Amino acid sequence: MRGLQFAETLRFADALSKPSAAENDALISVGLAGICNTDLEIVRGYKSFHGVLGHEFVGTVVDCRQRDWLGKRVVGEINVTCGRCDQCQVGRSKHCRNRAVLGISGLDGAFAEFLTLPVENLHRVPDELPDEEAVFVEPLAAAFQIVEQIHVWPGDRAAVLGDGKLGLLCAQVLAMSEARVTLLSKHESKADVARSLGLHTVIGADVSEREYDIVVEATGSPAGLQQSLELVRPRGTIVLKTTVAEPMTVDLSRAAVDEITIVGSRCGPFRRALAALSSGAVKVKPLISARFPLHEGLEAMERASEPEILKVLLEIGTP
Amino acid sequence: MRGLQFAETLRFADALSKPSAAENDALISVGLAGICNTDLEIVRGYKSFHGVLGHEFVGTVVDCRQRDWLGKRVVGEINVTCGRCDQCQVGRSKHCRNRAVLGISGLDGAFAEFLTLPVENLHRVPDELPDEEAVFVEPLAAAFQIVEQIHVWPGDRAAVLGDGKLGLLCAQVLAMSEARVTLLSKHESKADVARSLGLHTVIGADVSEREYDIVVEATGSPAGLQQSLELVRPRGTIVLKTTVAEPMTVDLSRAAVDEITIVGSRCGPFRRALAALSSGAVKVKPLISARFPLHEGLEAMERASEPEILKVLLEIGTP
Repeated sequence: MRGLQFAETLRFADALSKPSAAENDALISVGLAGICNTDLEIVRGYKSFHGVLGHEFVGTVVDCRQRDWLGKRVVGEINVTCGRCDQCQVGRSKHCRNRAVLGISGLDGAFAEFLTLPVENLHRVPDELPDEEAVFVEPLAAAFQIVEQIHVWPGDRAAVLGDGKLGLLCAQVLAMSEARVTLLSKHESKADVARSLGLHTVIGADVSEREYDIVVEATGSPAGLQQSLELVRPRGTIVLKTTVAEPMTVDLSRAAVDEITIVGSRCGPFRRALAALSSGAVKVKPLISARFPLHEGLEAMERASEPEILKVLLEIGTP
Repeated sequence: MRGLQFAETLRFADALSKPSAAENDALISVGLAGICNTDLEIVRGYKSFHGVLGHEFVGTVVDCRQRDWLGKRVVGEINVTCGRCDQCQVGRSKHCRNRAVLGISGLDGAFAEFLTLPVENLHRVPDELPDEEAVFVEPLAAAFQIVEQIHVWPGDRAAVLGDGKLGLLCAQVLAMSEARVTLLSKHESKADVARSLGLHTVIGADVSEREYDIVVEATGSPAGLQQSLELVRPRGTIVLKTTVAEPMTVDLSRAAVDEITIVGSRCGPFRRALAALSSGAVKVKPLISARFPLHEGLEAMERASEPEILKVLLEIGTP
C-alpha cells in the first residue's frame, strides 16, 4: 500500500506492507487524514518514532471479526492500551504504561491507505457529518479535554495563545462554556478566520497582562509557556497543550509566587467532539487551508509547516 | 539600630534608622529571625530587592496605637496589601497587585532590631510556644498552603523532593493528611534528621519512577522540576515551591502528554501553623542547625548556604 513513512527522513512509499486486523482489531481504509503539529514535531525528532505518521483520520472498516462494523464510517481513538497496567486498572487507560499511539509511538498511523485499531477505539460517524468535518474529531476532542480537566465559569476571562488549528478549536470550546474568550493571534490571515468564527481576536501583544483567569497555551512553540505566565492572573490556570521536541526555558518563579496552576492536557472525549460537530456548535470547515492527494504528502507536510496555514488534509481513499 | 542590609552586597550595619509605626502599624522588637532560601536567593539577585532582609521572625510589639497589642509576642504575615486592587477586592489579598513583602519587596525585613507591620498581619503567639518554635510559623504556614491548594487523600503516595528546611516541613504536613510520604534526600545528615521525625526517607535516586500521586518540589534548585516530572504519575500533581533567580529549563512535553498538574505555592495559613506547633503535630526543633547573634549575620548567611545545614537562626533581641 501507499503511505508516508518516517525513518530519519520522511518519504512517500508505494509498497508498504498492508496491515492485517488481529482478533479484536478493525482494518480501516483511510478516507481523509489531517496533519497535526505533532506530525511536524516527529519529523524534527520528537518521540523518536519511526513508521507511518498520522493520527487524525476518518475511514471505513473493511475487515473485522465483529461483522456489524464492516462498511461503517469511523473515527478512532489513538491510544492502544494493555488493559492490565496500574493506569488501565484505575481507569486512566489513556495513560496506559504500555500503550502504543497511532502514528506517534509503536503503531503505524493514518497517512497510508490502511490502518488497524482495536474495535474498542472506534466511534461511528453520523451519516450527516461529512468526512472533512469528521477528520477534526481527534483534535477537537483534545480541545474538549480542557473542560474535562478544569472548571470554566461563565464569564471567566480566557486567553488562547496560538492561532493555529488547535488554538481555534480550543477557543471555540471555551466559548461554548460562556467564557469571555480572546484569541491572541500573530497572523492576519488566521485572525481573519478566527473572526469569521465569531471569536474576539487580538493581533500582537495583549495589554491585559496578568488578568486572564485561564490561558490556553497552544502555540506549539517552546516560548509559549513564558508568554502564558505573563498573561495569567494570580492563582489563575494555564492549560499546556504544546508538545515540542526542544526543552522549554521558563522563569517558573512567577508560577510559584503567583500560585499559578499549569495543567498538561492531551487526548480528549471523542463523543463530545462528535456531538459538537454534528450540532454545528463548533465549526471546522473554515480551518481547512489545503487538501493534497496522499502521493503529494511531502508537499502537504511542507505546506502544513508554513506560518499562515491552518489544517492541511490528505485525501487518501475514495470518498 | 543594627541590621543586615542588602544593596548590591550584604553588610552588617549598626546605624540603620529605626522605623516608626504608622497609623495601623505595630513597631516590633525582633526576638529571633530565621534564614530562608529566599534570603539567599535575594543575595544572588532574585527580586532585585534592596533593604533589610528577613521575613521569618518572632518578636514583641513595642509601639502601636491599638494599645492592647503592646507587649504581646507576635509573628507576622509578610504581605502588606493595599485593600483596593482587584486581587484584594476578590479575597486574594496575598496576591495584592500593589503589595510590599517583608524583607523581599518594598519593605525592610526582620534581620534588624525593629520592624513594622500592619496590625492586621499579626498573630499572637501562645505563651507555651517558645520563640525557637514560633520563628518557624511563616515557613510552616507555607507548607500548610499545599493542603489548602490540593486535596490529599489518605493513602496518596507523596514524594517530597528536597531535604532542606522547607522540605522537612512539607513532608510533616503531608504526613498529617495520612499521605504515604517519602522524603527524597541527598545528604546523610539531613536524612538523619528526617528519620528522627519519623519520615520515610530515601537517599539518592528513587526507583519509583512516575508512580507518585503528589510530588512536592522543594529543592530550591532550577533542576528540581525536571526531577519531579520523572517521579510523578500520569495525571499526578507537582507542587512547585522553589523560587530561584535563574530560569528553569525543562522538558514540559512530559507535563502535557501525561497531563501533569503543576501548582505554584507560596504563603499559607498562619493559624494552622500555630496550631500544629502548639499541639506538637509538627516538630521543628530538630531542624535548627545553628544560632548566631545578629552582628555575626554575614557568617550566619554563609552557614545557611552550606549543603548539610538546615535552619539557621539569628538571635536579635533579648528573649
